[in-house]
Amino acid sequence: MIILVINSGSSSLKYQVRDGDDVLAEGLVERIGEAEVPDHAAALDRVDHEVAEALGDRGIDAVGHRVVHGGERFSEPVLIDNEITRAIERLNPLAPLHNPAAVTGIRAITQKWPDLPQVAVFDTAFHRTLPEYAWRYALPDELYRTHGIRRYGFHGTSHAYVARGAAELLGVDAFTGVIAHLGNGASVTAVRDGESVDTSMGLTPLEGLVMGSRSGDLDPSILLFLLREGYTEKELNELLNRNSGLKGLTGTNDMRSVSEAAESGDKRAQTAIDIASYRLAKYVGGYHVAVGGAQALVFTAGIGENDDNFRSSVVGKLGALGLELDAERNAERSRRARVISTAASAFPVLVVPTDEEAAIAEATAGVVNGS
Amino acid sequence: MIILVINSGSSSLKYQVRDGDDVLAEGLVERIGEAEVPDHAAALDRVDHEVAEALGDRGIDAVGHRVVHGGERFSEPVLIDNEITRAIERLNPLAPLHNPAAVTGIRAITQKWPDLPQVAVFDTAFHRTLPEYAWRYALPDELYRTHGIRRYGFHGTSHAYVARGAAELLGVDAFTGVIAHLGNGASVTAVRDGESVDTSMGLTPLEGLVMGSRSGDLDPSILLFLLREGYTEKELNELLNRNSGLKGLTGTNDMRSVSEAAESGDKRAQTAIDIASYRLAKYVGGYHVAVGGAQALVFTAGIGENDDNFRSSVVGKLGALGLELDAERNAERSRRARVISTAASAFPVLVVPTDEEAAIAEATAGVVNGS
Ligand SMILES: Nc1ncnc2c1ncn2[C@@H]1O[C@H](COP(=O)(O)OP(=O)(O)O)[C@@H](O)[C@H]1O
Ligand SMILES: Nc1ncnc2c1ncn2[C@@H]1O[C@H](COP(=O)(O)OP(=O)(O)O)[C@@H](O)[C@H]1O
Repeated sequence: MIILVINSGSSSLKYQVRDGDDVLAEGLVERIGEAEVPDHAAALDRVDHEVAEALGDRGIDAVGHRVVHGGERFSEPVLIDNEITRAIERLNPLAPLHNPAAVTGIRAITQKWPDLPQVAVFDTAFHRTLPEYAWRYALPDELYRTHGIRRYGFHGTSHAYVARGAAELLGVDAFTGVIAHLGNGASVTAVRDGESVDTSMGLTPLEGLVMGSRSGDLDPSILLFLLREGYTEKELNELLNRNSGLKGLTGTNDMRSVSEAAESGDKRAQTAIDIASYRLAKYVGGYHVAVGGAQALVFTAGIGENDDNFRSSVVGKLGALGLELDAERNAERSRRARVISTAASAFPVLVVPTDEEAAIAEATAGVVNGS
Repeated sequence: MIILVINSGSSSLKYQVRDGDDVLAEGLVERIGEAEVPDHAAALDRVDHEVAEALGDRGIDAVGHRVVHGGERFSEPVLIDNEITRAIERLNPLAPLHNPAAVTGIRAITQKWPDLPQVAVFDTAFHRTLPEYAWRYALPDELYRTHGIRRYGFHGTSHAYVARGAAELLGVDAFTGVIAHLGNGASVTAVRDGESVDTSMGLTPLEGLVMGSRSGDLDPSILLFLLREGYTEKELNELLNRNSGLKGLTGTNDMRSVSEAAESGDKRAQTAIDIASYRLAKYVGGYHVAVGGAQALVFTAGIGENDDNFRSSVVGKLGALGLELDAERNAERSRRARVISTAASAFPVLVVPTDEEAAIAEATAGVVNGS
């Protein structure tokens, strides 16, 4: 089954064509809206052209869309029709940057290939199992009822995929433990018996860990203080989502540069790594409690899979839980799921590479075949 | 040495007169600014009158002031002079509700009793030992340099007092562990070798645990969302500081009422207790990591000392750390420092009553005698 995986941004369109584990084509169309690519339909024409070249006389069987926000309704991937598209659109206020782009992508495909089955795969779906005491903020109930203000969590497709990979590596039916997805965006999830029971991102992907350009956790009063200093909502949004995190602390949002700077003695870079790894270590302690005792700690995504220095900075702070990295295994570079702790570690520390496109394609095939 | 301990609010003045452990007089003057008590000077006349009655021909030797914010300068109690008063006043932007009241109280005493030594005891001082990776937010450095935006922490006088009490009960020189101060305001502190190394309140007392009427931790985007809905800074301030926490979740900010409602089957009350105890349990897990392995978990203040139901809700979630309450010891009502866990508990759980007035008086005597 040949599946086109689409990740629509407001001015970009990332795609991958897959047949099971084989990636037949992939690419990125950028600067949609500018002269060369006036809209998403024009972007799709490009994709069509590139894909046709790669596929020859074979055709696409289905399209899988990454959709950031599925609200409280979607706990599974779904086959898209007009009502589903509207339902995704109605969630725009909760994900003003992301959901409108997904809807534009869906509509462009519907227009171009009206008969192709399309599936929406939601970043929030895996976290629909959070218990109320974990998803509810200590705010008046009305804010939840009227505006849907609660913890949703994100990166769910990745966390679910990695939880399955970790269970396989450990040889257990369902994973119980803590998964740290550390990319440009970063989140950590507490998983019990294969289900998400808590996660660090909240109403939006801003809460939680120190990220590339996002602040993560803050005293909410900081926003009140800055409002009194004259900041507008727009400026605060820009500050917290684009100019904070590693970027705010060091000037760059790229962990590879930060790591290299720290290794060559840059103090600001080292402080940023200390802050980010300390915050994550505290979350691991908290989620070890949340799952009732972790079976493993798992690292994934760009930083989690590749940055042995960051991993050792995190695990080095987890002595209280009895964790211990094997320096050699941690330093080894590999694309495979693997154990990087010593035999003496109270529970194993793993690296399990994530693959969101593979997960979306799998989910899409599942829905199409099941329907 | 007879010490007058003063806690000045914007429209109230709480006082206690102590001679060591003896409380000779105490009281509260409210509604300062209204007809009967036009200002803090008038309030002091009342206090003077009540105190004179209690002391007879003995006189006050020194005054100790509770000051909420000591910024980065004050890591110890200090003898007050004009420059110190100005320094406290300069911190007003960081504690707009609290520091101006303290300064008013100090100036009123200076006017009335110009020769009486006065000491400022800071709520932030105990947390001056936080390492940078714990006090720094992942924000542009400029916000710290220009505005002093960082984690300060509060309830320090109580946490320090309780840390000493816990060390005494455990028979150790310096305490290492986690202290949960659970009153109307609530905070949890990680203490290593007697020093604060992390704490849940931040720039202001809003961050962290679920409190009587404060939200504690939130996705910062919730404020951005509400700003887009038309909320003003003032309304957000009111919402998060006065109408959230237990109040927002249940309608009352008083834990005793919430506990009673939950016991008689009120679901909303039970949910509020679950949310608050779960959040605290996660902090305990995180701070167990932060201190490199806790020696004890300590409960203090109104809820921590009196609410066995809440304590068992917290410790019941800490099975992953091997903690276990002794039901009988937990249910026992007492004003004394005590162990409430079983012998099998991985580390002991304690109740250590706090006494901020005693701590302020002790600190005041120390400064006056040392100077
Ligand atoms: N070898 C490496 N060492 C340190 N950081 C790395 C390395 N390789 C990738 N990264 C970091 O991973 C992050 C991107 O992760 P990725 O999962 O690709 O992000 P996205 O969230 O965009 O999918 C960047 O901060 C990048 O610097
Ligand atoms: N027996 C009790 N059971 C439950 N809660 C109690 C009990 N006694 C006091 N409290 C709660 O303690 C809180 C006040 O704590 P306290 O330390 O006095 O507050 P403050 O922060 O004002 O000093 C209130 O929520 C009150 O309901």
